Amino acid sequence: MGRNETHDPARKSWVESANAAGTDFPIQNLPYGVFSTPGSDHRVGVAIGEMILDLTALESAGTLRPAGSRTVFAAGALNPFMALPQTVWAETRAAIARLLDAGEGDRSAPLVRQAEATLHLPFFVRSYTDFYASKEHATNVGTMFRDPDNALMPNWLHMPIGYNGRASTVVASGTPIHRPNGQLKGPDDATPRFGPCEKLDFELELGAVVGTPTTMGHPISAAEAYDSIFGYVLLNDWSARDIQVWEYQPLGPFQSKSFATSISPWVVTREALEPFRTPAPEREKPLLPYLYEDGPNNFDLALEVELAPAGGGPTVISRTNHKFMYYSSALQFVHHASSGCAMETGDLLGSGTISGPGPGTLGSLLEITWNGRDPISVAGGTRRFLEDGDGVRFTGRCTGDYEIGFGACEGTILPAVDFGRA
Amino acid sequence: MGRNETHDPARKSWVESANAAGTDFPIQNLPYGVFSTPGSDHRVGVAIGEMILDLTALESAGTLRPAGSRTVFAAGALNPFMALPQTVWAETRAAIARLLDAGEGDRSAPLVRQAEATLHLPFFVRSYTDFYASKEHATNVGTMFRDPDNALMPNWLHMPIGYNGRASTVVASGTPIHRPNGQLKGPDDATPRFGPCEKLDFELELGAVVGTPTTMGHPISAAEAYDSIFGYVLLNDWSARDIQVWEYQPLGPFQSKSFATSISPWVVTREALEPFRTPAPEREKPLLPYLYEDGPNNFDLALEVELAPAGGGPTVISRTNHKFMYYSSALQFVHHASSGCAMETGDLLGSGTISGPGPGTLGSLLEITWNGRDPISVAGGTRRFLEDGDGVRFTGRCTGDYEIGFGACEGTILPAVDFGRA
Repeated sequence: MGRNETHDPARKSWVESANAAGTDFPIQNLPYGVFSTPGSDHRVGVAIGEMILDLTALESAGTLRPAGSRTVFAAGALNPFMALPQTVWAETRAAIARLLDAGEGDRSAPLVRQAEATLHLPFFVRSYTDFYASKEHATNVGTMFRDPDNALMPNWLHMPIGYNGRASTVVASGTPIHRPNGQLKGPDDATPRFGPCEKLDFELELGAVVGTPTTMGHPISAAEAYDSIFGYVLLNDWSARDIQVWEYQPLGPFQSKSFATSISPWVVTREALEPFRTPAPEREKPLLPYLYEDGPNNFDLALEVELAPAGGGPTVISRTNHKFMYYSSALQFVHHASSGCAMETGDLLGSGTISGPGPGTLGSLLEITWNGRDPISVAGGTRRFLEDGDGVRFTGRCTGDYEIGFGACEGTILPAVDFGRA
Repeated sequence: MGRNETHDPARKSWVESANAAGTDFPIQNLPYGVFSTPGSDHRVGVAIGEMILDLTALESAGTLRPAGSRTVFAAGALNPFMALPQTVWAETRAAIARLLDAGEGDRSAPLVRQAEATLHLPFFVRSYTDFYASKEHATNVGTMFRDPDNALMPNWLHMPIGYNGRASTVVASGTPIHRPNGQLKGPDDATPRFGPCEKLDFELELGAVVGTPTTMGHPISAAEAYDSIFGYVLLNDWSARDIQVWEYQPLGPFQSKSFATSISPWVVTREALEPFRTPAPEREKPLLPYLYEDGPNNFDLALEVELAPAGGGPTVISRTNHKFMYYSSALQFVHHASSGCAMETGDLLGSGTISGPGPGTLGSLLEITWNGRDPISVAGGTRRFLEDGDGVRFTGRCTGDYEIGFGACEGTILPAVDFGRA
């Protein structure tokens, strides 16, 4: 897949807000999501400027029929469309761009104002896997939680380390997040206690959304894996650091992560990101041949994290970039399938926390405050970890001949639920 | 829920094979599964002696309508039925027992011979979580892989340790299992290599199948969790020990487990197991109040593992019992939901390897051969780990006023697929 007419920087849309400087959603982007309006079912749409093009209506009217006589947008989730051949993804994107084109477009196409719509989880999350692919993040965490002299585990430079996450609690941006309860035990406590997490954190990640499935027992190459990814979302892997440090040995993070994961509502397609592909950092050790990449599979995607206390304005607390990741989503997919594990339409692969090499590029409070040692200033106070009422907001933009954005991935912390049996 | 007329030991069925000594499926059992016959769709059925009662046909004919006007057995999977209220599970079980009763039953009810049917995965596995709840197993593994003096991690006696597994590769008993490929690195190797697993193992487990979901953010009690489990299956958590030992730090088992998990085709209901409830071993340390159990939630379920090389007869290599497990499935459910994690209909909770305290009661080859040090004899040879062509077969039976069984969970090892890019 290379660049084509859908990447033409000169192309404009008859939807005027899509041509405005600073929009996340020009005609070169066309990300997919799921929305509803008061009284409507869930519908599939594409973001264009400040509007949503209603694909469910277009399919129903016969204007856009990606699956011929069968309907895929009526499902109110992207999964049936993502399960279609990759050539259909490309044809549909080209057809949508033509519909919205300032010259040849159809100005009667059904539009809904984003401000009047509710955005939902864009796809059924079949399985969620979370990786650990920033060398800086892995090194920082290893330094704090284990041994500063051996912060990076010996396996880390040889394969994308990951673990299976919890799909049932992946929620759409905007869903409030209850502070989790769990077992807590300080290093000097004789026994654990049960109660609300006291070290609640975010993790800034990019989520890859699998479109094309694999067959159980049949591994694939990085080029095939890259093409099998339908698109990407911003992802917040909410993390309870104090629950994690007590529970994670020997089987890994469990309840410290399972309570919630937020994703941005618009799936930016792999095809829209094509002009922004960039290589991963240089390999410090050669990778085994099954992890061979024949092209650059990272993205030059600038990311920003804002923290806003209840009633206070936002403070930008991190500016980083997906290009820093040592392992691409494509390589994570390859490793995941290499054992024979079947990958399915709707699988979500979290990149792992995106932390870069420089100051101000860290993707979690754990790293930014060095496990609470160095509090940061926010409106009206300081923060070591997240407090009730705090809002966390991720945004991401790619800049080249033109700019595209991801919209926002946000969540606000609610107090822990009263357990009653703690 | 206590005992009722469906547990009457004197009750007989007009299906004669259900009254034979040694059957797994007397009228007191009535486990649910999914089957097809040549040319048929997937249908929901109940095992009775050597036959299957066709619930999809009974629902279609109007004889059995658990959801009123809506159909649940037409789906060809148990999920819609398991999502119905727990009272409906009990009413349906009672109605099926009456239909099959030697006295009041309906001898025209639609039956299919098990020998003529193909059995399928009985439910869509929404998420799969695997625990680690035998103290003997956790101690044995910790002794071999870590430190014999600190084999049990400090958290183990305080909570059910578990990790999220991979749902996409849970397969029905009888599905052949490809030996996985993966990264391997011996302690003296300078670098890892990629190739077929050389330490392929089974793990004998009981799988709890979640029927009633929970709401995200809302924990439940052990009594509620026990009742929310629809039923249980035998489960083989196939494991690649050499891949595991290299990959598992710090995020836990991943590709060493993700390639395959087999389950037995019949879901034995929680209600059928009611007469066989038995307490867990005595607590060595008090559990926190959120893990309070008001009754015995383990089962007196005798389990057996057979290993049969290609062309050779089976050898029983383990005889153990679910009663040895330190943490019940109900407690695992409670802990899983305690952070606010939403549990969903079709979730599968693996008990963890069932190893007991005595010789001959171990649930994995890793333990039986002590990581290959002590090979065991099987037909025509010896085994440290599984070889291509080996068949592994689990069975389980409860014995009280009457006996019920689980059928078998079996799988045969196929050679690794040629990767081509190793």
